[in-house]
Amino acid sequence: MCVAWQGYNHSMFQFSITAKNNHARRGIFSTPHGDLITPVFAPVGTQATVKTLTPEHLKDINASLVLSNTYHLYLRPGDELVRDLGGLHKFMQWHRPMLTDSGGFQVFSLSKTRKIDDDGVTFKSHIDGSTHRFTPEKSIAIQENLGADIIMAFDECSDPTNKAYSAIAMDRTHRWAERSVKAQTRTDQALFGIVQGGVQADLRATSARFIAALDTPGIAIGGLSVGETKQEMHETLDVVTPLLPENKPRYLMGVGTPEDLINGVARGIDIFDCVLPTRLARHHSAFAPDGRLNMMNASFARDESPIDATCDCYACKTFTRAYIRHLIVAKELLAGTLLSIHNLRALIRLMEQIRVYIADGTFESRVPDLLERWGNNATRKKAV
Amino acid sequence: MCVAWQGYNHSMFQFSITAKNNHARRGIFSTPHGDLITPVFAPVGTQATVKTLTPEHLKDINASLVLSNTYHLYLRPGDELVRDLGGLHKFMQWHRPMLTDSGGFQVFSLSKTRKIDDDGVTFKSHIDGSTHRFTPEKSIAIQENLGADIIMAFDECSDPTNKAYSAIAMDRTHRWAERSVKAQTRTDQALFGIVQGGVQADLRATSARFIAALDTPGIAIGGLSVGETKQEMHETLDVVTPLLPENKPRYLMGVGTPEDLINGVARGIDIFDCVLPTRLARHHSAFAPDGRLNMMNASFARDESPIDATCDCYACKTFTRAYIRHLIVAKELLAGTLLSIHNLRALIRLMEQIRVYIADGTFESRVPDLLERWGNNATRKKAV
Repeated sequence: MCVAWQGYNHSMFQFSITAKNNHARRGIFSTPHGDLITPVFAPVGTQATVKTLTPEHLKDINASLVLSNTYHLYLRPGDELVRDLGGLHKFMQWHRPMLTDSGGFQVFSLSKTRKIDDDGVTFKSHIDGSTHRFTPEKSIAIQENLGADIIMAFDECSDPTNKAYSAIAMDRTHRWAERSVKAQTRTDQALFGIVQGGVQADLRATSARFIAALDTPGIAIGGLSVGETKQEMHETLDVVTPLLPENKPRYLMGVGTPEDLINGVARGIDIFDCVLPTRLARHHSAFAPDGRLNMMNASFARDESPIDATCDCYACKTFTRAYIRHLIVAKELLAGTLLSIHNLRALIRLMEQIRVYIADGTFESRVPDLLERWGNNATRKKAV
Repeated sequence: MCVAWQGYNHSMFQFSITAKNNHARRGIFSTPHGDLITPVFAPVGTQATVKTLTPEHLKDINASLVLSNTYHLYLRPGDELVRDLGGLHKFMQWHRPMLTDSGGFQVFSLSKTRKIDDDGVTFKSHIDGSTHRFTPEKSIAIQENLGADIIMAFDECSDPTNKAYSAIAMDRTHRWAERSVKAQTRTDQALFGIVQGGVQADLRATSARFIAALDTPGIAIGGLSVGETKQEMHETLDVVTPLLPENKPRYLMGVGTPEDLINGVARGIDIFDCVLPTRLARHHSAFAPDGRLNMMNASFARDESPIDATCDCYACKTFTRAYIRHLIVAKELLAGTLLSIHNLRALIRLMEQIRVYIADGTFESRVPDLLERWGNNATRKKAV
């Protein structure tokens, strides 16, 4: 008798919802490297390192899930090398849950030339211009070599405003999702299908139903935060999440700002990731409740207060704005480290607060206040 | 009755020698921010930060003394700002002993144009070309604003091979040392006079006697490791240290390599500082017992061993050479942080070992072995 391939070990990836507040959910997603309490924000460690931070820094800010990029690690140092050295967790010494994307987004956003066909994508390395090819099977093989707890089906991210192309890319994403599921050989990785469809409600509904039917242990929503308006993002989520199974975690890829996290949770999202906190840190910008701060601003030269008096991160508990500004002006790299710690902690702390509010039933009523408090971090700097 | 200005509080800066091994000494130098166990190596935090490291990293590697640069902090963020924010310890959150140099070396090495007269030096900022002037009185005023535990007399560092100039610079250094002592108003800082005189034995002897007679609570030896040969450095130390008082700490400025530390201790030096460990880290080079390692070397791509299996630093206890090489190749800043931790810990650990050997009376007999083990870190990279 031939037993059908199960794709993943159901008992290894249980998702339990422990509280609900309208659409917002608080839950526990168990993985081989520990339980994720959701909703959760994942720092991005593109090249097997969250830029400028040690794993100790990440534990200090209570990071639970770290994302790393399949495209980057395939090119450098190579997924087979990572596999031979014991996998990504051991390589970068991060022993909590990890997630890898499929490389689908990067072959479109980073490679200067690419050729897409129904079988896969041929692209050039952004490092040395060499030619490479990703297919769903190849993406899964790389992700199995890397060994993250959560892996992604190979997908095509289209221009959200081009409906004809969005339909083609969505269909291809669906075929590739089926092939990704079929290609999986490891049972200790949760493979998520990805909903695409641009900002067209009918395409998104079709895609949500198709991906839900694949019965993967979690579902990702891709192709957002790529140029569409906030309203389009919200409308898309409003179409998609009601069509997804209640009992599986939902991951909104590459999002976002504090405002996006609040709005995403309110629409039933459980997992987020974004490079924004660390990227802002490299540009001297700090999340703060009253609006994003440009820490190089001369007004901070003698400011003895911390970046954010309400923050419990190492940077805020230890250093003044004056010192951090000095490091920035003097071009000292420690500035980027301290601001990365602060910005990541700000989002992780926001998620901790949101989880408390969902548990005590007050999240829904607090959304306006949360948006009022955090909303302007997305769009403008504080006038100082 | 007029009481003569004492210059410093003797009871605050006691130096006790606890063990001797021929010329090598183990001692305790007490400062307002704690006791220094000597011989000691001080990491350099030029701009009020040891590059890429947090104070927690420095505590983890058992750093006890940190040096910062008067010239840099005067220009940026300004010594008055540091004073107004509570001084350098508070500004950079390093609450163990600190040392500032006088700025004398930097106005010669960093400023493109300078004009020296008997009163002081007029120089241009290496940052913006603006004109500034240091005198002994100005240097002491800046160092009092910064507030380090150990401060330096203003000195002139000459070309060691030019005897005529060395004599002029030495005389000026002596006048400036007298003026520096007179200019001091704080009693909680130990002001060290600086012995100069190039590599001329007669000048060095004259300078050692002159500076010793000033009765400062410690004595620095400047103008070495600036282009002279190793033999010239050793011969100079052999002339100078026997002329210095036994009961005061001796600081060899800007030195050095592991080899230099061993040779310096053997000649009676108690305090060292050098940018080498952190500078090498930025150039991917790691101290190791069998010779310096270029961590970018392709041979490390799959090397699962730590940088140095005998090292107890965070980098060596946590990561493989393969991972550190990956970070370097991928241009990730964490590489510099990890190599800085390792290289600084290597020198601090070497000093810890040396202190044990002095205490147990074996240092003198171990010098050949120590030099054999550490000597080639100075001059060549390991063949791999």
